[in-house]
Amino acid sequence: MIYAMYGVLEDIENGKLYLNVNEIVYEIVVGDTGYFEDFLNEKIKVFTKMIVNDDEISLYGFSDVLKLKLFEKLILVNKLGPKSALKIITSSDVSYIVSAIVNEDVKTLSTLPGIGPKTAERIILELKDSMKEFDVTLTEKDKKILEAIEALVTLGFSRNQSKKAVTQILKKDDSLDDIIKKALKFLSR
Amino acid sequence: MIYAMYGVLEDIENGKLYLNVNEIVYEIVVGDTGYFEDFLNEKIKVFTKMIVNDDEISLYGFSDVLKLKLFEKLILVNKLGPKSALKIITSSDVSYIVSAIVNEDVKTLSTLPGIGPKTAERIILELKDSMKEFDVTLTEKDKKILEAIEALVTLGFSRNQSKKAVTQILKKDDSLDDIIKKALKFLSR
Amino acid sequence: MIYAMYGVLEDIENGKLYLNVNEIVYEIVVGDTGYFEDFLNEKIKVFTKMIVNDDEISLYGFSDVLKLKLFEKLILVNKLGPKSALKIITSSDVSYIVSAIVNEDVKTLSTLPGIGPKTAERIILELKDSMKEFDVTLTEKDKKILEAIEALVTLGFSRNQSKKAVTQILKKDDSLDDIIKKALKFLSR
Amino acid sequence: MIYAMYGVLEDIENGKLYLNVNEIVYEIVVGDTGYFEDFLNEKIKVFTKMIVNDDEISLYGFSDVLKLKLFEKLILVNKLGPKSALKIITSSDVSYIVSAIVNEDVKTLSTLPGIGPKTAERIILELKDSMKEFDVTLTEKDKKILEAIEALVTLGFSRNQSKKAVTQILKKDDSLDDIIKKALKFLSR
Repeated sequence: MIYAMYGVLEDIENGKLYLNVNEIVYEIVVGDTGYFEDFLNEKIKVFTKMIVNDDEISLYGFSDVLKLKLFEKLILVNKLGPKSALKIITSSDVSYIVSAIVNEDVKTLSTLPGIGPKTAERIILELKDSMKEFDVTLTEKDKKILEAIEALVTLGFSRNQSKKAVTQILKKDDSLDDIIKKALKFLSR
Repeated sequence: MIYAMYGVLEDIENGKLYLNVNEIVYEIVVGDTGYFEDFLNEKIKVFTKMIVNDDEISLYGFSDVLKLKLFEKLILVNKLGPKSALKIITSSDVSYIVSAIVNEDVKTLSTLPGIGPKTAERIILELKDSMKEFDVTLTEKDKKILEAIEALVTLGFSRNQSKKAVTQILKKDDSLDDIIKKALKFLSR
Repeated sequence: MIYAMYGVLEDIENGKLYLNVNEIVYEIVVGDTGYFEDFLNEKIKVFTKMIVNDDEISLYGFSDVLKLKLFEKLILVNKLGPKSALKIITSSDVSYIVSAIVNEDVKTLSTLPGIGPKTAERIILELKDSMKEFDVTLTEKDKKILEAIEALVTLGFSRNQSKKAVTQILKKDDSLDDIIKKALKFLSR
Repeated sequence: MIYAMYGVLEDIENGKLYLNVNEIVYEIVVGDTGYFEDFLNEKIKVFTKMIVNDDEISLYGFSDVLKLKLFEKLILVNKLGPKSALKIITSSDVSYIVSAIVNEDVKTLSTLPGIGPKTAERIILELKDSMKEFDVTLTEKDKKILEAIEALVTLGFSRNQSKKAVTQILKKDDSLDDIIKKALKFLSR
């Protein structure tokens, strides 16, 4: 019912935004607040999904509409609740997740937080035919970047650190190994 | 509870409107968006029905109040959910549907999308006595127009194409056959 | 949660108000629309109670806070839903109903629409100890007026007609019989 | 979903605030209205928690965010509903309650209204590990003040009276006995 909101970002805490929309401050669960931190006390647009259950109505929020759309698909998957879906979405790029689903790539999906092989298979089974609206075409370079980030995260670096490192060191013809080695060097300065 | 909304139509996608009402963008399911497409980025009034169930609160929307009223009646019919009710309402004119119910016309009702004879009978049984507020008096001409449109739709033309064709070619004393023949000629230009 | 609303009264139909509050038009069930009809297209305050059940969220509305408070009490009574409670409240004055409950007056309560002796007893049993906030002290004159109105309604006149007639003919020392006779004469002019 | 509201405080009654936020007056259950009484007809911020159950959606309100946070923790405790949680929170200071939980102090917790030893133990069991966000460090002086207030409340004085008395008479090196004796003298002027 509530697709997006424009409001002043009053506060950010514990993975939640506090957005003042016409004198009502909404608590919006976003998980990864990294993107939003630059906009404190500014007016922003947040894409939202209202989750209703017996004893609570809560709002989940996203910085862009593709993340919202993917979230709406993921929560339809059997045994996958909003919290797990949010973890998946904030763990990587939409294109990376969608292409793993489209390519029925259980191994890649299983590297994402909170997803074991069984959940990965269920996601693929239930969603692979409904990904068309994401028209995702990952270039070879995109794939190498996303895989390098995953590798760094597996080595214990935070996702933000990994993204920043890879973006800093990346050269046009780097192989996946080149990217990981140079990023590690960058991170250990 | 929410009967109508005035807001700026920000976007239209997959049979849904995205209406900005005082900084909150509501997702409104309308099915057939044809009528609304001329009003993108303009302020409009949408008649709405809030549908509440265990795990979702959604808004269904209509361009005029008679459609809303008929929708509110249809969703009371046993085994007829909001999605099916919406399909019926967006498939034809309110007067055509209401007069079929009032005249207990199973055959005509069964031509509407998603309605078999059984559902048609149930709709008639449960609603025929509660159609008075629609004070629908179809002229002979109205009936010929609506029947011609249904015929064209059955032949595979979209409802919008059929409506436009019939309106273009219609002359005062045309018989039903005349209308269908001239409309087909118009559509095959 | 929603105690009252200020908005422009856009429309009145079938016992419902359509109140535009900041571009959202709320449908408010009031039953007796008599009081509100003078305020069409004006800004008014309506006291509201939000009724939530499995498949609907609706708003019931009242012209003054005492009616709202009595409604909130009545809907707590076992087997008494919002529709029946509304019928009771729109059928008479709050003081008349409250004093019947406080005086455990089953006979008077049973004259109100939708209330048989059993429901009257249940209302008295469950509510008589929680009427203090209404500090209702009916004068003898109040009682005669209310009883005269009830008598006229039982004779088939509408509640509005009866109220208007009694108010028109009332003299200081009239007995109950005087009031009824003069009101009947007035109504048969 | 609704974390806070800015609105004009229209009325206060029976432990509830009536807050006008953009023409909609919200009923907010706060229990102890003492703090809010100074702000009648002024614009204020109220921290809120929306409680949803089968047949009602209600708003609970707090003057500061720490009380809201503690309320959100307490209502997660098995068999502890919002009304009981509100009673606990309005009975004492957040720091006093939190330090009793952190120190596993069943005796102190049991002095709070509506809490017997069993509930105290359950609160401690379920919440003691999730109190970090309250970073509560009570000085010796704080403890003496809170204990003196509890003693006066047990003697029958209202919490507001007790707080005012203790604050009026307090000297730097007073022992707990001194504070209680001097407060009693103050209260019996």
